[in-house]
Amino acid sequence: MADSPNCDLKSLSPLQLFERVTEQGEKVRALKAGKAPKDEIDAAVRMLLSLKLSYKTTTGQDYQAGLPPKDLELINNGTAKEEDEDLVDPWNVQTSNAKGVDYDKLIVRFGSSKIDTDLINRIERAIGQKPHHFLRRGIFFSHRDMDQVLDAYENKKPFYLYTGRGPSSQAMHVGHLIPFMFTKWLQEVFDVPLVIQLTDDEKYLWKDMTVEKAYEYARENAKDIIACGFDINKTFIFSDLDYLGTSAGFYKNIVKVQKHVTFNQVKGIFGFTDSDCIGKISFPAIQAAPSFSSSFPQIFNGKENIQCLIPCAIDQDPYFRMTRDVAPRIGQPKPALLHSVFFPALQGAQTKMSASDPNSSIFLTDTPKQIKTKINKHAFSGGRDTIEEHRKYGGNCDVDVSIMYLTFFLEDDDRLEQLKQAYTSGELLTGELKKVLIETMQPLVAAHQERRKQVTDEIVQQFMTPRKLAFEF
Amino acid sequence: MADSPNCDLKSLSPLQLFERVTEQGEKVRALKAGKAPKDEIDAAVRMLLSLKLSYKTTTGQDYQAGLPPKDLELINNGTAKEEDEDLVDPWNVQTSNAKGVDYDKLIVRFGSSKIDTDLINRIERAIGQKPHHFLRRGIFFSHRDMDQVLDAYENKKPFYLYTGRGPSSQAMHVGHLIPFMFTKWLQEVFDVPLVIQLTDDEKYLWKDMTVEKAYEYARENAKDIIACGFDINKTFIFSDLDYLGTSAGFYKNIVKVQKHVTFNQVKGIFGFTDSDCIGKISFPAIQAAPSFSSSFPQIFNGKENIQCLIPCAIDQDPYFRMTRDVAPRIGQPKPALLHSVFFPALQGAQTKMSASDPNSSIFLTDTPKQIKTKINKHAFSGGRDTIEEHRKYGGNCDVDVSIMYLTFFLEDDDRLEQLKQAYTSGELLTGELKKVLIETMQPLVAAHQERRKQVTDEIVQQFMTPRKLAFEF
Repeated sequence: MADSPNCDLKSLSPLQLFERVTEQGEKVRALKAGKAPKDEIDAAVRMLLSLKLSYKTTTGQDYQAGLPPKDLELINNGTAKEEDEDLVDPWNVQTSNAKGVDYDKLIVRFGSSKIDTDLINRIERAIGQKPHHFLRRGIFFSHRDMDQVLDAYENKKPFYLYTGRGPSSQAMHVGHLIPFMFTKWLQEVFDVPLVIQLTDDEKYLWKDMTVEKAYEYARENAKDIIACGFDINKTFIFSDLDYLGTSAGFYKNIVKVQKHVTFNQVKGIFGFTDSDCIGKISFPAIQAAPSFSSSFPQIFNGKENIQCLIPCAIDQDPYFRMTRDVAPRIGQPKPALLHSVFFPALQGAQTKMSASDPNSSIFLTDTPKQIKTKINKHAFSGGRDTIEEHRKYGGNCDVDVSIMYLTFFLEDDDRLEQLKQAYTSGELLTGELKKVLIETMQPLVAAHQERRKQVTDEIVQQFMTPRKLAFEF
Repeated sequence: MADSPNCDLKSLSPLQLFERVTEQGEKVRALKAGKAPKDEIDAAVRMLLSLKLSYKTTTGQDYQAGLPPKDLELINNGTAKEEDEDLVDPWNVQTSNAKGVDYDKLIVRFGSSKIDTDLINRIERAIGQKPHHFLRRGIFFSHRDMDQVLDAYENKKPFYLYTGRGPSSQAMHVGHLIPFMFTKWLQEVFDVPLVIQLTDDEKYLWKDMTVEKAYEYARENAKDIIACGFDINKTFIFSDLDYLGTSAGFYKNIVKVQKHVTFNQVKGIFGFTDSDCIGKISFPAIQAAPSFSSSFPQIFNGKENIQCLIPCAIDQDPYFRMTRDVAPRIGQPKPALLHSVFFPALQGAQTKMSASDPNSSIFLTDTPKQIKTKINKHAFSGGRDTIEEHRKYGGNCDVDVSIMYLTFFLEDDDRLEQLKQAYTSGELLTGELKKVLIETMQPLVAAHQERRKQVTDEIVQQFMTPRKLAFEF
């Protein structure tokens, strides 16, 4: 893919890029004025967007017609954000790079460890089967202390899984499934208990939402989570608003964390200000506490020293950096972590998908027709603006959202590799690639909907009832 | 009492006072050198302390031998605390005035209302009996919306009482009984439910103490509270560490308060800083939440609009100013309040008694002999330094701690008035007055100890079990 002409954009100067964007803009206007075929116009618009992105990546500025770029030196040393400064925290993911966040840099910045071939091989030996394609394809790319979890596992010491979701709306999209699909796999291959936190209190605190509505979303989201296929005998799902009032251990751990974290620290980690409500300021302790097994006396028989492993998207890491800092000071083991990359919006990898923008993603409630329309209309393409150019130069897999989605959802390694090669070579056209994605996502979403229908309120109630799971501690 | 020579100290200039302290110091040294009778030396020392206090009250400075006072103007306009600036918040009560905090000024500063004769008369009409001597004697001196509570009561609308204690140690002193004695009386005359919060989480957060120890203190303190004679069918006592994990409504109210209070606000109200832990910062919401009946669904059948009345010492008012500010914004009624003065230390009314200084007060565990010794040795006296002077000029009831304690604990109005007059006139000597106090406190503490012995762990468990009380809502 390094040979594709799109990559050559990188070698252009800001001014040259500016001129390319201007040219492409004129081309789009000409096509529209000449009432050219829709396909041709769409392809030209995609290329225009792609060029604008390259421009922004290179200069750190949005393209503005008639306003040539300022001197780059000045931009990089001035107040503008550095080109390579991705913004990643629990509420924001922003990058100017069409390929998405630079995860290698994030590992260095966050101080975590890369999931390398050695670790993947060790996991394979430990579980006696091929690791999940999320591991093989670098979707779960970073970790903290996963080697210690494997040490413990090999020595028959128990551990448990903890993951979660902030139920900000009823509608979940396919990106929300990533941590749950992976967690389900971990639960199966390691045969361990799992706790899933629904931070309805967080959503109440952050959004314009009542306590009742946040709790309702939590229960609705629980249905989608359960539909991922979790074992009811090994999984406890809880709403904070609910569980805090029913657990003898949860609040005690929360208050222990709250005693050992200052406002200065949460200000540094989460960027809180003096104008933030005290609920936000103390919330990180509530996301921290499930990392300690004594928060679940009904599951762990009150045992305090059970190792916890947290699979989550990398944007949640600040909570658990804080947790790992506090853990030894309250006599608890540090939780281990497995971090995933972000799931890209249909419009491109610059940002996470958002549940509040229906066109930014494929929702779990979408019909086959909606899925088809959304992919055809919104999936950002790395293809060329004409079929001829595409055949000649090939597409750019690095920025193509269809390829990204297939990397998440197409389990067949060989097929994925073939598609990438064919797209890069120009043999596979954008329309054909999108067809493959549509045919992958439609049955996946339909099957999810079918499983979700089976999830009754009673089943939700069972999953959400504090109880002993099918393990002895 | 305005005629007693002690009062004349106020008319002396700082320099004249300085000279009086110096003279009295020399007198004490001379008496000691001459091996004078112990009584005589003690009286001289007491007068010395009294003079030093007057010096401090007037100048805002501690007396230092050989260091005459600086110019007063300079002191009052400089960085030193203003003479009349009492420090009152939930963790500090400091005044330089031997008569104690200026409560009229506090009412103005806190924006509460004075409990005047009209209100006391209205309470008398409402309950059909003589109001408690704490009301008649100005010990409960300030209120917020007590008239609304009486309106509701007269219209047969229900209300409930809420008070509490921070269990900082196993040992409680007689001062800790004041709010409970008064609350018991309120419960009896109004026949209403009562909830008592033990803020063991607060003590864990503020002190060098484990969660387990804080909870243990809460249960021990519950015994002393129960020994005040609360009706088990009408009273729910709860530890935060315990109840938060067993209540469906408590955490929901906490998080509602936490959403509506910013760090800026708690900084202003409680003086928190960026170095404070997030537990302290969010704690005020936990003391606020029991003001809302939905925190106790088991008692109020989930009803949200029951009026709350909080009897407490005035230092707790900041929590409830905050609560009253938040209440309408979360659709809850504002709690009403009845504020008490502080109970003075044996050493004088400049500060609250402290559970951590065994000599600062009479403890509920003290033997008759310990009570006698403490009063004789430590109770600050408004008497003269010789019997002759005392007979001639009389004692100063305004600063005499024995008189203050009797105002709290001697229920007989006529007897108290006689004692005050006799002491002011000089007819009653300090030793005789102290004897009256000893004879008042010894049976009071012994009776408490007797009742406390009856409070078994099972009774504590009953009081602390969330349950329906003997009321219909």
